[in-house]
Amino acid sequence: MIEHEFLDWLRQRLPKSDSSSTDDYQLQDDAARMHLAGDAIVTSDLLCEGVHFELKQMSAHQIGRKALAVNLSDLAAMAASPTAAVVSLLLSPSTDLNWAKDCYEGLLSLADQYGLQIVGGDTNRWSSGIVISVTAIGQSGTGGILSRSQAQVGDQIVVTGSLGGSLQGHHFRFTPRVHEAIELMEQFTLHSGMDISDGLTLDLSRLCEASKLGAELWLDQIPISAAAQAASEHSMKTPLEHALGDGEDFELLLTLPADEAARLTKLQPLEIPITPIGQIVAEQGLWTRAADGSKTAIAPRGYIH
Amino acid sequence: MIEHEFLDWLRQRLPKSDSSSTDDYQLQDDAARMHLAGDAIVTSDLLCEGVHFELKQMSAHQIGRKALAVNLSDLAAMAASPTAAVVSLLLSPSTDLNWAKDCYEGLLSLADQYGLQIVGGDTNRWSSGIVISVTAIGQSGTGGILSRSQAQVGDQIVVTGSLGGSLQGHHFRFTPRVHEAIELMEQFTLHSGMDISDGLTLDLSRLCEASKLGAELWLDQIPISAAAQAASEHSMKTPLEHALGDGEDFELLLTLPADEAARLTKLQPLEIPITPIGQIVAEQGLWTRAADGSKTAIAPRGYIH
Repeated sequence: MIEHEFLDWLRQRLPKSDSSSTDDYQLQDDAARMHLAGDAIVTSDLLCEGVHFELKQMSAHQIGRKALAVNLSDLAAMAASPTAAVVSLLLSPSTDLNWAKDCYEGLLSLADQYGLQIVGGDTNRWSSGIVISVTAIGQSGTGGILSRSQAQVGDQIVVTGSLGGSLQGHHFRFTPRVHEAIELMEQFTLHSGMDISDGLTLDLSRLCEASKLGAELWLDQIPISAAAQAASEHSMKTPLEHALGDGEDFELLLTLPADEAARLTKLQPLEIPITPIGQIVAEQGLWTRAADGSKTAIAPRGYIH
Repeated sequence: MIEHEFLDWLRQRLPKSDSSSTDDYQLQDDAARMHLAGDAIVTSDLLCEGVHFELKQMSAHQIGRKALAVNLSDLAAMAASPTAAVVSLLLSPSTDLNWAKDCYEGLLSLADQYGLQIVGGDTNRWSSGIVISVTAIGQSGTGGILSRSQAQVGDQIVVTGSLGGSLQGHHFRFTPRVHEAIELMEQFTLHSGMDISDGLTLDLSRLCEASKLGAELWLDQIPISAAAQAASEHSMKTPLEHALGDGEDFELLLTLPADEAARLTKLQPLEIPITPIGQIVAEQGLWTRAADGSKTAIAPRGYIH
């Protein structure tokens, strides 16, 4: 049972919806009501202590922010516009309620930034570790919805930002590419896409599988982050290996026709770089091509849940 | 990390959507897409071992069924039609994967019955107890949406079924009143409503609070369940006290104009009884009236989360 003081704080802290709208049903009813202009896009992620975060390594604010951020990245993967979220929080016997407040503050900092409302959920205490489960609801935009399964042979593969070494700090600070995905979806002909959450090669192999195609990666073109460089100094891996296999980049992986890719990489419409890293091919699997034209298979590496 | 065998089983077990529809995006993308005819209605409940269930007292099938049933009851409270759900499951180190399968089977038995699709979620293992978090998405029907806040002075208060003693077994066997709520919403002028999850008097006091009104209860009219009778034989409470204060009835609590209530209680359109138990009054609080016309306040009792 959670102290009234926290629930009163939460009720005050959650922004009230415009009382002239039917959204006023929210928070006092058994379920939240929302009007969506397009199709509903729904995603859910559960983070738990000891698996997804350690209390000694991340602050409550960082954990709360990340719990929502990973969901926003999933909405970005579909080029959906965030609308609302429900939050379930399980506290351990020793969790201070200020921890719970800071966790919500982290979550709300991102919610405010993306115009998303927390419309429900609950907080409980139990005898085990901390769990935070967030379900985010978005709506499809005018540009349509991005999917993993619509890649076509000849598409170029591009990524936003740079990859690898996320555990150095990027994983709790990253900007979910929500606005970027919607903007690209509106201004370019994108065939397929997803977010890179489990490592470039693993996620690309999933996109290929969903599209029943393969991919040829241009290994010398992969944008390697400074964090991947730093990580490689203490690991047994090269910076490229970090960029190919580390999880939690939360960048966009997109495929689009070659002429559109050329226009996109020339225009560079985002504040972050967009880099072509390969192309979609008919033969299933991930491939790289040597200078002599010979093909080698790349084994997908990354974080398998 | 969860064994591939379970994930393969789950992939097979979850019904595939019609491949001719855009719902085909489901389960392979980062988020699920669904087209809703009306407004989106969203609710979420998290059940955890030791607080909401004990492994020695409930089977995996019962726990899975209940995790979805409580969400369906929340949709019923809004007279919403269930569409989809996402499920996050955390297993303990010792949980057999057959337990996880049985849990899903319990959940799917109810999903199938209500035409609801499991469109996403994840399964993880960690070092603590079992957690199951379900978020259900529904859509508003042609009859509109039910809310707690629209009760009016003079409304009669009615309940479906009978109340009390849910812990005797009703709490994991109950039928969420989804069809009942939609049918009543379409055929009668309902002003307000909710489901009774925390105890009649506590939930009625919340409905009154949301509507900024009060209620007079007719204590001799409360439909007392056989389980409440049975429970009272071993408790220090009367059957009526069980009916007024026990949680987890998951019946509907509705208010409607007196003439509509008379029509409803005469017609009895459901397979379960509908009983008038009081009326909405202007003075805030819960009241009962003695034979001499004098009013006494009733203290709301029930399960406070």
